Amino acid sequence: MLLHLCTWPEVEAYLERSQGIILPIGSTEQHGPTGSIGTDAICAEAVARGVGNAIDVMVGPTINVGMALHHTSFPGTISLRPSTMILVIRDYISSLAKAGFTKFFFINGHGGNVATLKAAFSETYAYLADLNFPNAHQVRCQVANWYMCASVYKLAKELYGNEEGTHATPSEVALTQYVYPEAIKQVPLSPEVGRGYPIYGAADFRRHYPDGRMGSNPALATPEHGKQFYDLAVKDLSNGCLEFLSAD
Amino acid sequence: MLLHLCTWPEVEAYLERSQGIILPIGSTEQHGPTGSIGTDAICAEAVARGVGNAIDVMVGPTINVGMALHHTSFPGTISLRPSTMILVIRDYISSLAKAGFTKFFFINGHGGNVATLKAAFSETYAYLADLNFPNAHQVRCQVANWYMCASVYKLAKELYGNEEGTHATPSEVALTQYVYPEAIKQVPLSPEVGRGYPIYGAADFRRHYPDGRMGSNPALATPEHGKQFYDLAVKDLSNGCLEFLSAD
Amino acid sequence: MLLHLCTWPEVEAYLERSQGIILPIGSTEQHGPTGSIGTDAICAEAVARGVGNAIDVMVGPTINVGMALHHTSFPGTISLRPSTMILVIRDYISSLAKAGFTKFFFINGHGGNVATLKAAFSETYAYLADLNFPNAHQVRCQVANWYMCASVYKLAKELYGNEEGTHATPSEVALTQYVYPEAIKQVPLSPEVGRGYPIYGAADFRRHYPDGRMGSNPALATPEHGKQFYDLAVKDLSNGCLEFLSAD
Amino acid sequence: MLLHLCTWPEVEAYLERSQGIILPIGSTEQHGPTGSIGTDAICAEAVARGVGNAIDVMVGPTINVGMALHHTSFPGTISLRPSTMILVIRDYISSLAKAGFTKFFFINGHGGNVATLKAAFSETYAYLADLNFPNAHQVRCQVANWYMCASVYKLAKELYGNEEGTHATPSEVALTQYVYPEAIKQVPLSPEVGRGYPIYGAADFRRHYPDGRMGSNPALATPEHGKQFYDLAVKDLSNGCLEFLSAD
Amino acid sequence: MLLHLCTWPEVEAYLERSQGIILPIGSTEQHGPTGSIGTDAICAEAVARGVGNAIDVMVGPTINVGMALHHTSFPGTISLRPSTMILVIRDYISSLAKAGFTKFFFINGHGGNVATLKAAFSETYAYLADLNFPNAHQVRCQVANWYMCASVYKLAKELYGNEEGTHATPSEVALTQYVYPEAIKQVPLSPEVGRGYPIYGAADFRRHYPDGRMGSNPALATPEHGKQFYDLAVKDLSNGCLEFLSAD
Amino acid sequence: MLLHLCTWPEVEAYLERSQGIILPIGSTEQHGPTGSIGTDAICAEAVARGVGNAIDVMVGPTINVGMALHHTSFPGTISLRPSTMILVIRDYISSLAKAGFTKFFFINGHGGNVATLKAAFSETYAYLADLNFPNAHQVRCQVANWYMCASVYKLAKELYGNEEGTHATPSEVALTQYVYPEAIKQVPLSPEVGRGYPIYGAADFRRHYPDGRMGSNPALATPEHGKQFYDLAVKDLSNGCLEFLSAD
Repeated sequence: MLLHLCTWPEVEAYLERSQGIILPIGSTEQHGPTGSIGTDAICAEAVARGVGNAIDVMVGPTINVGMALHHTSFPGTISLRPSTMILVIRDYISSLAKAGFTKFFFINGHGGNVATLKAAFSETYAYLADLNFPNAHQVRCQVANWYMCASVYKLAKELYGNEEGTHATPSEVALTQYVYPEAIKQVPLSPEVGRGYPIYGAADFRRHYPDGRMGSNPALATPEHGKQFYDLAVKDLSNGCLEFLSAD
Repeated sequence: MLLHLCTWPEVEAYLERSQGIILPIGSTEQHGPTGSIGTDAICAEAVARGVGNAIDVMVGPTINVGMALHHTSFPGTISLRPSTMILVIRDYISSLAKAGFTKFFFINGHGGNVATLKAAFSETYAYLADLNFPNAHQVRCQVANWYMCASVYKLAKELYGNEEGTHATPSEVALTQYVYPEAIKQVPLSPEVGRGYPIYGAADFRRHYPDGRMGSNPALATPEHGKQFYDLAVKDLSNGCLEFLSAD
Repeated sequence: MLLHLCTWPEVEAYLERSQGIILPIGSTEQHGPTGSIGTDAICAEAVARGVGNAIDVMVGPTINVGMALHHTSFPGTISLRPSTMILVIRDYISSLAKAGFTKFFFINGHGGNVATLKAAFSETYAYLADLNFPNAHQVRCQVANWYMCASVYKLAKELYGNEEGTHATPSEVALTQYVYPEAIKQVPLSPEVGRGYPIYGAADFRRHYPDGRMGSNPALATPEHGKQFYDLAVKDLSNGCLEFLSAD
Repeated sequence: MLLHLCTWPEVEAYLERSQGIILPIGSTEQHGPTGSIGTDAICAEAVARGVGNAIDVMVGPTINVGMALHHTSFPGTISLRPSTMILVIRDYISSLAKAGFTKFFFINGHGGNVATLKAAFSETYAYLADLNFPNAHQVRCQVANWYMCASVYKLAKELYGNEEGTHATPSEVALTQYVYPEAIKQVPLSPEVGRGYPIYGAADFRRHYPDGRMGSNPALATPEHGKQFYDLAVKDLSNGCLEFLSAD
Repeated sequence: MLLHLCTWPEVEAYLERSQGIILPIGSTEQHGPTGSIGTDAICAEAVARGVGNAIDVMVGPTINVGMALHHTSFPGTISLRPSTMILVIRDYISSLAKAGFTKFFFINGHGGNVATLKAAFSETYAYLADLNFPNAHQVRCQVANWYMCASVYKLAKELYGNEEGTHATPSEVALTQYVYPEAIKQVPLSPEVGRGYPIYGAADFRRHYPDGRMGSNPALATPEHGKQFYDLAVKDLSNGCLEFLSAD
Repeated sequence: MLLHLCTWPEVEAYLERSQGIILPIGSTEQHGPTGSIGTDAICAEAVARGVGNAIDVMVGPTINVGMALHHTSFPGTISLRPSTMILVIRDYISSLAKAGFTKFFFINGHGGNVATLKAAFSETYAYLADLNFPNAHQVRCQVANWYMCASVYKLAKELYGNEEGTHATPSEVALTQYVYPEAIKQVPLSPEVGRGYPIYGAADFRRHYPDGRMGSNPALATPEHGKQFYDLAVKDLSNGCLEFLSAD
């Protein structure tokens, strides 16, 4: 079930059998010379909807702009500041908690979101408790990164080895190729690629990662790989989500 | 061009010929017994992409959650607070301005967004100027409501007269039916419908508009109407956007 | 009744018969070569006190600085940022709601305040509801622009036609002349005047409106006109306020 | 010169000879059974205008709502939170500094404002410096409490001795009687009056100061006393302001 | 009792006999050519622990960074903005109030903290009341400056006369020498020293106080003086704290 | 070198040879029936000072209150909200960056700080860049958790196996025993201990971890172990810090 295609009475009926919701969260940021700006949002949304279908759980609207400040020296990147994103997440959760949702399963496509998301969860638990929300003590949030699923990680290593890298990876690019085959891009990639340098500010990032890739070779990606990653991620996260929703 | 399907070098190339971007903004809120929760985002996104196509202007990611606090007594609604939304808009614009974008054309699907959007524009102009952004004085924002296009408004009156109403309107529902024919909902609607009462807080809103409709009869909507509205809005807003982008 | 001239026991007594209050809100901003910096506050205050007298409703202190960021390239302008003004309005309303006031009728003298005021109302309704204020669901706010009263608008068109313009208008200048006849200023005005250009940032505004006027000819103003505007506005807004206060 | 009665070219001309401005700041809060809610704003405004006249310095709009949270258990009180007031002061000063003002002399009528004002000054100095305002390092703010002028304090002790108290004092009430003789209120005052208890939260305050007075007997006030206080305060603060403006 | 060396069950037991806590607050800021950057925190912590020992009251962790924006042109200074510090104090008090603490006695070592602390107290009282904290109306905060104790002040005048000055004073330096005799610094001090100039922004401060001292001669300090100051401050503040804790 | 025992000229001299600083950060939170409330701050401070000594790097004041909202159902816990902590870290770094520091090595004693710290780093990089700080692009921050050092982790497993747990661990308790042997506490511990449950809000946390321990048996700790952990952590983090400071 996709929240945006439901009516409010349908949501009301849903809440009688479940208080769980999946929230896809990605980013709008450079993904190297061939990766789509929307890669992280595309992947998170596709996987989240697959999971929602598989286990009949409501899927909310995709948060397609996240915390990507370190990518803002590349055009096309849009980022929230962490302080803004904390408020956004707080507003999402408190709106939904007011209606009765209590279990928030964020399917995430961007490593840069994780720290701020976790900070936002802590902020929100205290916020709801301080405001005496009736269900404050039932509210639970979890972030699940599709690219960190054991099966996904294993396949990426098998297919790409060290060329998987950590940003603009062939695995995530493959998944976007599966979702949007019409938007596959190929350009010559320089054989050298930045690798292993920590992430600080945006200018520093671009200096060390001049074409935006971090140790990756996205030219290895294929839509067929993408389907494999998709299937694995949906399966793993369906289990993960069910476990989360059924926990005491 | 859809930003999320572009690579950053493509954005870089685009910026050499245009500094304009279209940003669709909707809402995630109840739309009566038969309207989709995502109605405003669906409409804004569809029209914005149509406009982007028609006049070859970049279209950014859809802001699918807006200012809908007055709808939060109905389940499924998600709202940003105005103070949060101002920060979100500021972050979007400053990220894009840093890369060289200066003209921001917001295609909007939700009346409740307008005041906060305008406040956010003012906040952002001053923010960029105070920070000495190199292009601060070139940055311009405009909000264009697809449902307020003269041609759209006229057709809605012709088709629905007084039953157009002001929320969960047959015109917006029709447009969603055109985009998502598979998600058309029909349930019996009470013959009486709330009408004409001002909007204050959420509880008060639900008391006066018990099923969420504001003076509307969405049962009149058809996907064919939706296509007509779509075509009119795309045409009108394409002109509006071109005028905005070419203004001195 | 003017709040600032009442004692607290008088306010307590007033609250037993009415929970309504009028709050005048203006701005401190340039009004062209001859208009007072305080024009919007002067007009709002005068009309609000007239209304308060006419219908025996409490009038609060004048908010004499509003949202005028686009005028800040002209000396003398003082502006709140929208994010600040939202907090100010929230603090006013929550202070007064704590004491029992629930109906807030803002008589406004500045178009630039409207968007932020409306955003602030939404923010405040949710704030009071989240904090479980006992009267949260009774709180209602309305903004009424004295210069938009049908009778005022009509008279301005009759007297000034196209030379009314939209900022530093003869109608508002006339009203200040009626209130402060000792402060009437006359200087030669350039025959050309900026007109029709949208409002973006402050530097851009001054570039398009070099002397601060927007399409207006304030030299047409007279104190006698001012009295006419005053009388019309007080009459119209007295009715509007009574209707607001008596609504269910 | 009153800023609100000047035009922007007049302000521009003024800035060529002085960069100083007087900002009256008061409060809107209970002042016991007979004192006006607006006492602090009335006094600050009257004295500030007197000073401005005496030494030909620009006087800005009165900040008539300040930090009065501890009085909010009495109806009629309106208070900003300190965090809001810091933003308000920052916005005032940065608007005026942008135009060239650098010396801000706050004439204050309310002890409860002082701490927050001083915090706001510190916040603002750093804010302007961080933003590289051209005149950031010239900006200076001072708060001057009219009721703390040596001559005022001495007269109050002579006239009222221990009955001066510390809130709803006969001296401030006298000054309002001088300004608004038509609004003098007399009611029987209980012979006992709260005294000497520290100020914490609003409920605690009302418990210890049940009628709002703090050790004072405002029944001793007369308009003639008010004139004396006014003259003394204007004289003292005129000297203080001149000294501030001429300091290196 | 030092909170950081207690276990939570010990705190729980303590709360059954007392709801008071001492919070030392200092600053991390330049203290002239020979004074330690941590002077204010060192002094506040030492005195607070002495008081805690003397009267068996819990002592919380030292807030060692305060409001020192005006010292930030000297290297080594760290400052919170007032707006940040208000949130910090609010978070401390609300955490502790949630557990049952209601009386907060801040032993302060830095004059620059006082205004912001007082603003923070006001902010917090209203915050807790608005959130309906069960003990909101019992929460009381007081700031006590060790260097303002009558006995301390008197001794400083006796020992140093006019050379006590107001920053990097021999009295505070002496106290740090008593606590850290191994860190005593001596360098030649210029015979002239800035004196009597008001505090505005950081650059202005350094211009008027080029070596950081304000009218003081810290070369007069000795560890033996430090012990005297320590003993006097502990005695005076022990009485002050007991009085605060036992007040009705 | 300890910043708080340096003078500002000493800091100025230090900055000529190094722009690095170590910032210890801990927490003030329950650590089970026998662990000190200050455990995380005590450990971080001790290790940080050891590292500073070993490699001659400046050590700043200990941030002894961090993000511990999930522990606030146990008395004695003090927590910043994530949104507050982001501002605190931003203020620390910007104060120090203004003076010339660019490399910030946070030695951390509390897992709950990590997400918020990382969010704060991102926030701060963008903040400094937007404000055009001269050294904005050189600023780098790193968080190093002493308890995650490979050697520490290995020893903890050897000594305690599964009884190390994840909060109120014998390793951290041992380190505090080494630092404060006079404050060792022993009470009978229940044989069952909460384990493996995810962390959500504070009430939920206490329900699952009723005595505050997470899978640990702190009774196994000894001061001698503590010395071993201390030595290992200082050695590992000295290397880590040197590597960080010398990186290009």
